[in-house]
Amino acid sequence: MTYATLINFIKKQKSYLCVGLDSDENKIPVFLQKNTNAIIDFNKAIIDATADFCVAYKINTAFYEAYGTKGWEIIEKTLEFIPKTHFKIADAKRGDIGNTSDKYAQTFFETFNFDAVTVAPYMGEDSVMPFLKYKNKWVILLALTSNQGSKDFQQLTLENGQKVFEKVLETSQNWGNENNLMYVIGATNPLELKQIREKYPKHFFLVPGVGAQGGDLNEVSKAALNDNVGLFINASRSILYASNQEDFAEKAKKEAQKMQKEMEKWILTP
Amino acid sequence: MTYATLINFIKKQKSYLCVGLDSDENKIPVFLQKNTNAIIDFNKAIIDATADFCVAYKINTAFYEAYGTKGWEIIEKTLEFIPKTHFKIADAKRGDIGNTSDKYAQTFFETFNFDAVTVAPYMGEDSVMPFLKYKNKWVILLALTSNQGSKDFQQLTLENGQKVFEKVLETSQNWGNENNLMYVIGATNPLELKQIREKYPKHFFLVPGVGAQGGDLNEVSKAALNDNVGLFINASRSILYASNQEDFAEKAKKEAQKMQKEMEKWILTP
Repeated sequence: MTYATLINFIKKQKSYLCVGLDSDENKIPVFLQKNTNAIIDFNKAIIDATADFCVAYKINTAFYEAYGTKGWEIIEKTLEFIPKTHFKIADAKRGDIGNTSDKYAQTFFETFNFDAVTVAPYMGEDSVMPFLKYKNKWVILLALTSNQGSKDFQQLTLENGQKVFEKVLETSQNWGNENNLMYVIGATNPLELKQIREKYPKHFFLVPGVGAQGGDLNEVSKAALNDNVGLFINASRSILYASNQEDFAEKAKKEAQKMQKEMEKWILTP
Repeated sequence: MTYATLINFIKKQKSYLCVGLDSDENKIPVFLQKNTNAIIDFNKAIIDATADFCVAYKINTAFYEAYGTKGWEIIEKTLEFIPKTHFKIADAKRGDIGNTSDKYAQTFFETFNFDAVTVAPYMGEDSVMPFLKYKNKWVILLALTSNQGSKDFQQLTLENGQKVFEKVLETSQNWGNENNLMYVIGATNPLELKQIREKYPKHFFLVPGVGAQGGDLNEVSKAALNDNVGLFINASRSILYASNQEDFAEKAKKEAQKMQKEMEKWILTP
């Protein structure tokens, strides 16, 4: 998907919501758990209920790999349910030496038709470049994550005064541009988010941590929106598990709609 | 597998060779490529040919994921061919927020019965701990990798004078110990390898980069062996593709045997 197509869709939907399909057999409604296709049925119901209010779906590969071979079949099926209009993210956090990253890129961009994949930066340039070779596909590079452990290495200060995640942002500017490279920036510190946006005004940010992890939609929007929106706010658990009863899809829809209504205000009056 | 079992097996085999199954449909012998089970047949032949000379197999998940669902079936089958005596590594380079790393740990330690998984440190403590909860299972944490891109972030100097990878080694000492935590340390700089070994005398190191990537077996052994061997040297392409003819398994065996013979000298006279 091109930058222009993505922006147009976001403006049409009046939403920058990404629904994270971290679908967990133990957390979906009990009545569904009896079904052998439980996760497939659950994902279909969630996608049908939320598609009008979001612009992207993020499949967290860990939740599917845990089922082994069957899990990858569920990913395949789930991708078929997602409307062609929507941006499809493999939240896979891959990254390895060049010839191996080549294979991961092939996995997510060819074998499965994702638009984007999250990539971990630790192994540097040659671990990321294979993903950037694909036309109209995207790398979403981990810069500053929303978890406690982001303090351990990402937040360390280098001898030149930069933090490690700031160096990741700076160095990766040489690898791609706003047409093929986005960043994961956690929602846990709106001030930091604002400073990063000021320095990198054009790139899309994928912001996790709103909802179950405590980040606030309006604070994030205020800090990180740019002239072209340039933002996905991801919500997973708060939408998927809005109810664990038969009304789960209806409740998921309401939660997604509520977030879209908040976002609409920011798109109309940025 | 426990530390003691692993050491005993290494001493029995007189080998610390890890065979990396980075099996690529485009590189295996042409006569095999016609077969629909080409990779399965190839892996079986390689395992049968090399099992007497190595102590571990490393499955690089990228090469299998590229086939989609079928790829995970190949991983399942391949694991069945590996003798119970051998240490089984998922070279997956995973790592995510806690509830997601939980799922990856479940994938590799429960759904598939690997002994160890490679983990990327960028997201910090809570991204690694879920893997360390499993008894007799191992994390192999990326510290210093063998690729060019290791310079981009791993080799940066922090304000306290430490390099980023040194901080990863130091901080992770609080997360696990030599009974559940190993490190990936690239073979490209034996002096650095020696210094790391002096600082961390007990932990196992998984050393890639010998063979196709240019590292030298004897230099690595001299620098990194400890009193309990404490070392896996990985070879992938140099063994897998020793020949692309019908004699590929025989040539793979010879290459593995040659490496084992070199290793035997180091185990007998460390």
